[in-house]
Amino acid sequence: MQHKAENQTIVQKKDNFSEWYGEILKRAEILDIRYPVKGVYVWYPYGYKVRNLVYGILRTLLDKEHEEVLFPLLIPKDELMKEKEHIKGFEDEVFWVTKGGSTDLDIPLALRPTSETAIYPVFIVWIRSHRDLPLRIYQIVNTFRYETKHTRPLIRLREITSFKEAHTAHATRADAEAQVKKAVALYKSFFDQLAVPYVITRRPEWDKFPGAEYSIPFDTLMPDGRTMQIGTIHLLGESFARTFDIKYEDENGSLKFVNQTCYGISERCVASVIAIHGDDHGLVLPPTVAPIQVVIVPIVFSRKAGRSNNGGEAVEEACVKVHEELKEAGIRASVDNSEDRPGAKYYRWEMKGVPLRIEIGPRDLKSNNCEFVRRDNTKRTHVPLSDVVPEVKRTLEGIQGDIHEAAKETLHANIYKSDGAGNNKREEKMEELRRKAEHGIVSLFLCDSERCGQELEDQLGVSVLGEAVYETEEEEKSEGKCVICSRKAKRVCVARAY
Amino acid sequence: MQHKAENQTIVQKKDNFSEWYGEILKRAEILDIRYPVKGVYVWYPYGYKVRNLVYGILRTLLDKEHEEVLFPLLIPKDELMKEKEHIKGFEDEVFWVTKGGSTDLDIPLALRPTSETAIYPVFIVWIRSHRDLPLRIYQIVNTFRYETKHTRPLIRLREITSFKEAHTAHATRADAEAQVKKAVALYKSFFDQLAVPYVITRRPEWDKFPGAEYSIPFDTLMPDGRTMQIGTIHLLGESFARTFDIKYEDENGSLKFVNQTCYGISERCVASVIAIHGDDHGLVLPPTVAPIQVVIVPIVFSRKAGRSNNGGEAVEEACVKVHEELKEAGIRASVDNSEDRPGAKYYRWEMKGVPLRIEIGPRDLKSNNCEFVRRDNTKRTHVPLSDVVPEVKRTLEGIQGDIHEAAKETLHANIYKSDGAGNNKREEKMEELRRKAEHGIVSLFLCDSERCGQELEDQLGVSVLGEAVYETEEEEKSEGKCVICSRKAKRVCVARAY
Repeated sequence: MQHKAENQTIVQKKDNFSEWYGEILKRAEILDIRYPVKGVYVWYPYGYKVRNLVYGILRTLLDKEHEEVLFPLLIPKDELMKEKEHIKGFEDEVFWVTKGGSTDLDIPLALRPTSETAIYPVFIVWIRSHRDLPLRIYQIVNTFRYETKHTRPLIRLREITSFKEAHTAHATRADAEAQVKKAVALYKSFFDQLAVPYVITRRPEWDKFPGAEYSIPFDTLMPDGRTMQIGTIHLLGESFARTFDIKYEDENGSLKFVNQTCYGISERCVASVIAIHGDDHGLVLPPTVAPIQVVIVPIVFSRKAGRSNNGGEAVEEACVKVHEELKEAGIRASVDNSEDRPGAKYYRWEMKGVPLRIEIGPRDLKSNNCEFVRRDNTKRTHVPLSDVVPEVKRTLEGIQGDIHEAAKETLHANIYKSDGAGNNKREEKMEELRRKAEHGIVSLFLCDSERCGQELEDQLGVSVLGEAVYETEEEEKSEGKCVICSRKAKRVCVARAY
Repeated sequence: MQHKAENQTIVQKKDNFSEWYGEILKRAEILDIRYPVKGVYVWYPYGYKVRNLVYGILRTLLDKEHEEVLFPLLIPKDELMKEKEHIKGFEDEVFWVTKGGSTDLDIPLALRPTSETAIYPVFIVWIRSHRDLPLRIYQIVNTFRYETKHTRPLIRLREITSFKEAHTAHATRADAEAQVKKAVALYKSFFDQLAVPYVITRRPEWDKFPGAEYSIPFDTLMPDGRTMQIGTIHLLGESFARTFDIKYEDENGSLKFVNQTCYGISERCVASVIAIHGDDHGLVLPPTVAPIQVVIVPIVFSRKAGRSNNGGEAVEEACVKVHEELKEAGIRASVDNSEDRPGAKYYRWEMKGVPLRIEIGPRDLKSNNCEFVRRDNTKRTHVPLSDVVPEVKRTLEGIQGDIHEAAKETLHANIYKSDGAGNNKREEKMEELRRKAEHGIVSLFLCDSERCGQELEDQLGVSVLGEAVYETEEEEKSEGKCVICSRKAKRVCVARAY
């Protein structure tokens, strides 16, 4: 299954991100795009291992307060159509099953584009009393969108293979809003563990999730200067509860509508890890999600000349010993015992993003040392064989921290805060904003009106991400004048978006 | 989400298995059948935990020599139709996606009924050389069948939510046959860990998987005397390789077709655990797949009267301590601290099949004891608090072994070996076989011809499972006369089947 691409150089990430991304998916064996249906792809074994580690982190976070369930893929047309706002947002994108065998189905069945209309009719029977609340569930499932735009592996798909959707129901609006805050904290922790930086905003009223009161997306900045939405949290309030008639009996015996939230993450989380950390030699995986965290490479020259002559046997023994020690310590380690030359091995494991390589050769053994080579910065250090386990742990932590810091710096260096003064001429100002938006996120003043929002989007070729919220540092809540209409306005983030 | 069914008795398993099964799925919160599409169901949190533990065992076994992948759900019509034998077996059962939004699709897309035709076109590009072989992959996915027969939760479904399908490719037929043997060993180990007994047969030629050279099913015996197929292994040989043109370059540089196998297990494995071990009080889960292996119940009467008066505080402390010790030892334990009466707690955890209950009350504490109550046989024993951890381990192992033995005994007691003598009158003989087949599996002599097989199936109302194979004990390879045509025949198993 290996691509023999060792000697071909790949396009540089900064020159053509899109081409680089496609090459990396192929060469690192993340996703095979040669499946004969538009917008659906095949997960390679290696890619699926990364996917499972990423979703393992997500599951661990969710399992503290949510329960995993599984609802059906097929949603009857009448259920899907119940929430009018909601379906408006999806109706052009729904795949329809209309036949079983050669029989036309009585009611067409939708492939879930998302599962509100599959889950909430069942909430009606699951929720009876205040004692059933809060109800917090999640599932990780395949969902479908009939995308007519350009599709892109892991990013814009017709089959989203790994949609994590959480759905919660609460007694009061305050409880639901508290859940939104918890979900924000959970997503922060998740993306922090992936070393993926983000901005958290509140989408403008005119661009929220269909059926939601408000939507809180996480966006990250991709290397081509576009933002990608990598997670979203919605306060649904009572809208779905009223449509589906989901009520509970409170402590006084009166029936009330539940208050709901939902929040989702797709395999874009995997795309962000690949895109943000990777370099011109391939993937750079954060140790948290690297299927192999440490690869051990024996440095034995001319093996065919006989092992005992060049210390090969001792080297292999040392490699096995180090491997055992690392496994014992819970580190995902592997020895590359293949017949390939060391250079070919380096190429392979660099492409696959293995965070740390340990080289052991006859000369190292003489001094009871081995050599560490970090994937992220190629730094080499000599480490005594007796210290391998603690040094590996320290180094993996260092890599995790360093690539996270580097990614955060890149993000923050590409957020441009436009002043609200508006002294420039209007055209100059717009030209400046447009230029800045080519490389990243622009923070500017915009009023709440959809008209101004859409005019700005048209003029700059951007999307409005919304007002920054849930910042840890002191938020700049200053007010200014709308760049379009000059009325009173708040700061919002805008960017060219995926 | 809890069903208030505490005081309602349920139908006895032996009187009406089908009704009992439905009640248990509901009351133990395995599956909710109230979803508005025929043949698709909702996994409750508790059911999904059982499912995840069952599939965790399967994954661990597979991961030793297989790699997990994920292929798309949607298969274009032309690919699905390529293998003529194969599609004949499925064409009446395929769900078709014909529309995206309001647009008719150019090529209808099938929801995979199984994934040979999704995976093998990609094998063409994954397999180049003998160095790529053997290739062994698996995926756990949802698959679809437009069932027109009576559907049944976990057993006969329109959406199979948890189909594990493995697909392998080999250089030679001998390698592929060796893989079939390995798969048989793997499935044995899997079902042994579920304490589910089985018979392994080779399906008659005229009833094998469409496209296979031969099929090796695992069948178990359900409490209503019917067999249920719970896993199947197929030798595909070169048939799909020839259809899809999957070749590899051997060591001498010549191109050869690969030899293939595939093998699958669906959520029927969960159904078999529920059906075989459960009793009139609910589930009886093997400790290997019990989400809660031990529930600790404090026996504190009239809590409201004040804890210090009746030793309640000391009891709760002891429960917490035991809980901590068990968790420390890697045992899935839980304390039921709810306000319910002990009787209500017993009912709940018996229904959910928790293998072991530990009761701790003030009197137990005085003697530094606690009481163990086994779910499978209701036996009570006093255990010193200082021995809880080793005694729990021993008891759980005992339960696992005992329910496995009991299930094997039931199976073997319901296999009737008809003699081959044929001295009775033909009609009497058939009547006897029909009667025996009402309670279990009948082993009788049948020739290879489809005509005799189908006549027997009609006359007895059974299915032919096939010749027993891969038995550990000495196989009875005796020959006799076909019960239909009296020609030379081998022993085969027949039974009424799901």
